[in-house]
Amino acid sequence: MTVLILTCEEDVTADMVVVHLHASGVPVVRLDPADLTTGVSLSGEYVHGRFRGHLSAGGRLVSIGGLRSVWVRRPGVPAGRAAQPSPWLTEEAAQALYGMLRGSDARWMNHPDAARQARHKPWQLRLAQRCGLPVPATVITTFPRAAREFAERFPDLVVKPVSGAHPQDPPRAVPTSRVAPDTDFTAVAFGPTLLQRRIAKRADIRLTVVGERLLAARKAADTGAEPVEVDVRFAPPGAPWEPVDVPPRIAESVRTYLREAGLAYGAFDFAEDADGTWWFLECNQSGQFGFVEVETEQPIARTVAEWLARPVPEETVEADRTPTTAC
Amino acid sequence: MTVLILTCEEDVTADMVVVHLHASGVPVVRLDPADLTTGVSLSGEYVHGRFRGHLSAGGRLVSIGGLRSVWVRRPGVPAGRAAQPSPWLTEEAAQALYGMLRGSDARWMNHPDAARQARHKPWQLRLAQRCGLPVPATVITTFPRAAREFAERFPDLVVKPVSGAHPQDPPRAVPTSRVAPDTDFTAVAFGPTLLQRRIAKRADIRLTVVGERLLAARKAADTGAEPVEVDVRFAPPGAPWEPVDVPPRIAESVRTYLREAGLAYGAFDFAEDADGTWWFLECNQSGQFGFVEVETEQPIARTVAEWLARPVPEETVEADRTPTTAC
Repeated sequence: MTVLILTCEEDVTADMVVVHLHASGVPVVRLDPADLTTGVSLSGEYVHGRFRGHLSAGGRLVSIGGLRSVWVRRPGVPAGRAAQPSPWLTEEAAQALYGMLRGSDARWMNHPDAARQARHKPWQLRLAQRCGLPVPATVITTFPRAAREFAERFPDLVVKPVSGAHPQDPPRAVPTSRVAPDTDFTAVAFGPTLLQRRIAKRADIRLTVVGERLLAARKAADTGAEPVEVDVRFAPPGAPWEPVDVPPRIAESVRTYLREAGLAYGAFDFAEDADGTWWFLECNQSGQFGFVEVETEQPIARTVAEWLARPVPEETVEADRTPTTAC
Repeated sequence: MTVLILTCEEDVTADMVVVHLHASGVPVVRLDPADLTTGVSLSGEYVHGRFRGHLSAGGRLVSIGGLRSVWVRRPGVPAGRAAQPSPWLTEEAAQALYGMLRGSDARWMNHPDAARQARHKPWQLRLAQRCGLPVPATVITTFPRAAREFAERFPDLVVKPVSGAHPQDPPRAVPTSRVAPDTDFTAVAFGPTLLQRRIAKRADIRLTVVGERLLAARKAADTGAEPVEVDVRFAPPGAPWEPVDVPPRIAESVRTYLREAGLAYGAFDFAEDADGTWWFLECNQSGQFGFVEVETEQPIARTVAEWLARPVPEETVEADRTPTTAC
């Protein structure tokens, strides 16, 4: 059975995983939905209560029923490179491709619905709380008074976007920034604002979870002067990322988090404070792992490949094909 | 506990449901996400492992923890009516609102992820097959040869969009049309095409399912001359919609379909053939029901209101608040 990877052409991280899949002899088909109607074709037939579907990419034909897993890595906009692209064609191509794949028995890393849900930061914070992870005090509000009262209770705050990257082209990451003590919160009324107690961190933690496997890395913060930049993505390079053990309670909590979220892959960011507590900042369901793997030599790509290559258990196949008594 | 209805201002169908909710004394808050940052405000606080959130609309404040259900009826684009609307503000507002609601214990009609999945027609057809519903032979393809071969096996075909409405502004419904016998399928290569065996129908069936309750209506087709228009939405008005009983096997199948799909509401369209078989055409998770209720006097709005008003069972509250052992 085949592993399907949905990604664009230039994707070094996907290349790393493909190397491991090739080495283990697992068939792989890699395609970019942007090539639908040009280099990529699809066909699915529903006759006499059965479905038979195929994808064709780069001259290779793969049966949808023969997919063991789908890795949604960095797929392009469906039919985005068609001769005459249009929102209508994209919608038709997206529904056709993902509609057929959703009806398959393949395992997803990550399922599109789980991925979509996982992008909601307010939902992330609530789930993290429920799973017992330490979450810095946070408010998300359009009430200036709520922001002011929160700032009185927690004077050392950062502000960050609710939704992540700014949707310009190309998308722009919005840095997390410190809030000055005399900030006027009147403008909060014009857009939801996320304020969070700043964790005085002695390290950043990146915990990559692949299925049940946990791979954590730690990057010590600059000691000495108060850091100007709180967002590790924008900080000058300092200490390297180094492998670190995961505290057992955190391990249990993040496994529960991923299970509840329906995710097979998640990259957790924590801030480690002076007491050694790991404070949950976010879980990125499509977080990069190449930079961590390069610095720590942790086998993340290989672990992803192993998860994707895992054979479908007999019983699961049967159960999935007949999901309920009546089906 | 309160029922939250997300819809625009002018929504007669929502009005019908609100009348029933008011009559039964259940608190209702109705708001349009488009009014976020103008008439609608929100605030959520994550402190010491707990979440406290509020929505404010039309001068009324409602606790997110006090919501019993959310009816996603016809919500506008979040912050769409803000003083300075932008894609960024919409994204921030959408994440804040739906992110908080997703973290609540409220029951959804329908949950956004289930709704999104349910719009995929290829997935619908596969699920209908699995649930034992009769599905007309269908092909969805970008291979001209596959289309030609299908047309040879099933000469009497209709063509319809894979994705539903054309995304122009306002969206335009694309009618289902008959395929002429001498059709040239070369253009299939330029966009996925859905071809389906035409059912010679003697009636259209609209089966509205609300929770476990089934309300079916039947509209006899014009007899006599071969119909030119196969799409009931575009046919001239003929026979009225009349209540009809649901065959027990269909009832079992559609209940399974909704359960598997995670939907609380679905409007199924069937074509009834000369043998009385109901052929599955589609299930619209946001299908209108006002026109059926008016003609048949079936209590659909009241049934929706009853579903929304249903109290949260004690055990569910506990189970939801503590979704797993570790959470």
